[in-house]
Amino acid sequence: MKIDILSLFPDMFSGPLHQSIVGKAIEDQLLDIQVTNFRDFSSNKHHNVDDYPYGGGAGMLLQPQPIFDAMAAIQNDNAKLPKGRVIILDPGGKQFDQEMAETFAHESHLTFICGHYEGYDERIKTLATDEVSLGDYVLTGGELAAMVMIDATVRLLPGVLGNKESAPGDSFSTGLLEYPQYSRPAVFRGMQVPEVLLNGNHQLIDQWRRKQALKRTLLKRPDLLNKMTLSKIDLELLDDIKADLND
Amino acid sequence: MKIDILSLFPDMFSGPLHQSIVGKAIEDQLLDIQVTNFRDFSSNKHHNVDDYPYGGGAGMLLQPQPIFDAMAAIQNDNAKLPKGRVIILDPGGKQFDQEMAETFAHESHLTFICGHYEGYDERIKTLATDEVSLGDYVLTGGELAAMVMIDATVRLLPGVLGNKESAPGDSFSTGLLEYPQYSRPAVFRGMQVPEVLLNGNHQLIDQWRRKQALKRTLLKRPDLLNKMTLSKIDLELLDDIKADLND
Repeated sequence: MKIDILSLFPDMFSGPLHQSIVGKAIEDQLLDIQVTNFRDFSSNKHHNVDDYPYGGGAGMLLQPQPIFDAMAAIQNDNAKLPKGRVIILDPGGKQFDQEMAETFAHESHLTFICGHYEGYDERIKTLATDEVSLGDYVLTGGELAAMVMIDATVRLLPGVLGNKESAPGDSFSTGLLEYPQYSRPAVFRGMQVPEVLLNGNHQLIDQWRRKQALKRTLLKRPDLLNKMTLSKIDLELLDDIKADLND
Repeated sequence: MKIDILSLFPDMFSGPLHQSIVGKAIEDQLLDIQVTNFRDFSSNKHHNVDDYPYGGGAGMLLQPQPIFDAMAAIQNDNAKLPKGRVIILDPGGKQFDQEMAETFAHESHLTFICGHYEGYDERIKTLATDEVSLGDYVLTGGELAAMVMIDATVRLLPGVLGNKESAPGDSFSTGLLEYPQYSRPAVFRGMQVPEVLLNGNHQLIDQWRRKQALKRTLLKRPDLLNKMTLSKIDLELLDDIKADLND
């Protein structure tokens, strides 16, 4: 996978993209990431990239010219790749979720346009195939949002996750929140690991985990249950859970 | 504000926390951030921090001992500060949003516990005041999620935003998505800035912007409108928008 990033702060990516899973994927040549500072493409003699908003208001807006020209250069450099998706990071965009990460993981080329300051000149959005938001909050720039989306996407590429991590069973990939997990010691400061996990009966363990995942999702994120098609066994477990909660 | 971060990958924070707004807040002494590698607190002779899950399953879990001991050391170092909030990053937690960023911005001490690998031993969660999720997606670790929450929070601290950014008028702070914005030039590659923004009539500009913000929110995020108390003028503008859309 090739990922291009347009940003005014390329150094922000130095730590996160060279550590952990994303760094390992680059090392293993499963991923190539190029960060382009679009300030280098400004045709203004002072290399400005921003100006006041028409109609007044606080803050500065990114102007179209530097980003249009940086995009043209990137598309030229990647002429052999399919055009792929151009993702503009904007709080008004479609909310990023696990399904979108899975869609992105099937592309061979992704380009992220990271805004900064007060926002974008609206015309910049015509360059994008997708306007995406990380969630209902405002960030100082798109850089961290791009890193989050890259992390969530890259970990789904074949060969990326090592044996310390795992993708199936994750929260959301089953549609439910993850069941509680425990490691050694069996007792820590008086807190015990549930007995069922210590007895080696895998049928009971699987049933306990499914019930816990359903219970946690019912209590914390009932909206996720409404999106799922539940099996007959799940529905019975949910009835048990509701009866237990009413006791 | 003092922020403590517990992480196995302290180098991930080097770029993002020294650039942009967060870096400037640290420089201006509005913010002090300390990253603690909890591997240094492992009582295991190999400095291990993870082990297999009880009951079987893929991946490795973070064990409680190193994190409990690192937390005790941090609380000791910050004995003079109010205990503040201890935020554990987990996809099953409450969804982070602008309101939570505003709550965090009123604290004097925040501690973020960043997981990694397959997840946490459930007992680690007893250390937290808040279990928080960035959104419905899975990341390889909590580091990027912590950086996003720190960025969204720190930009709300008094004195942090410079004159290139602005907080009022942001998406979500008004309850609506932001209206389209334009900067120079007035015509770029045939795309024109809307006439109303060029004529200097601020009453018309304000009305146009409010209508555009309402329209964008209606089309992209109607759920946000349902959460708001709309004024009589807003309701009239919405009727106009709906009539225009039906034309």
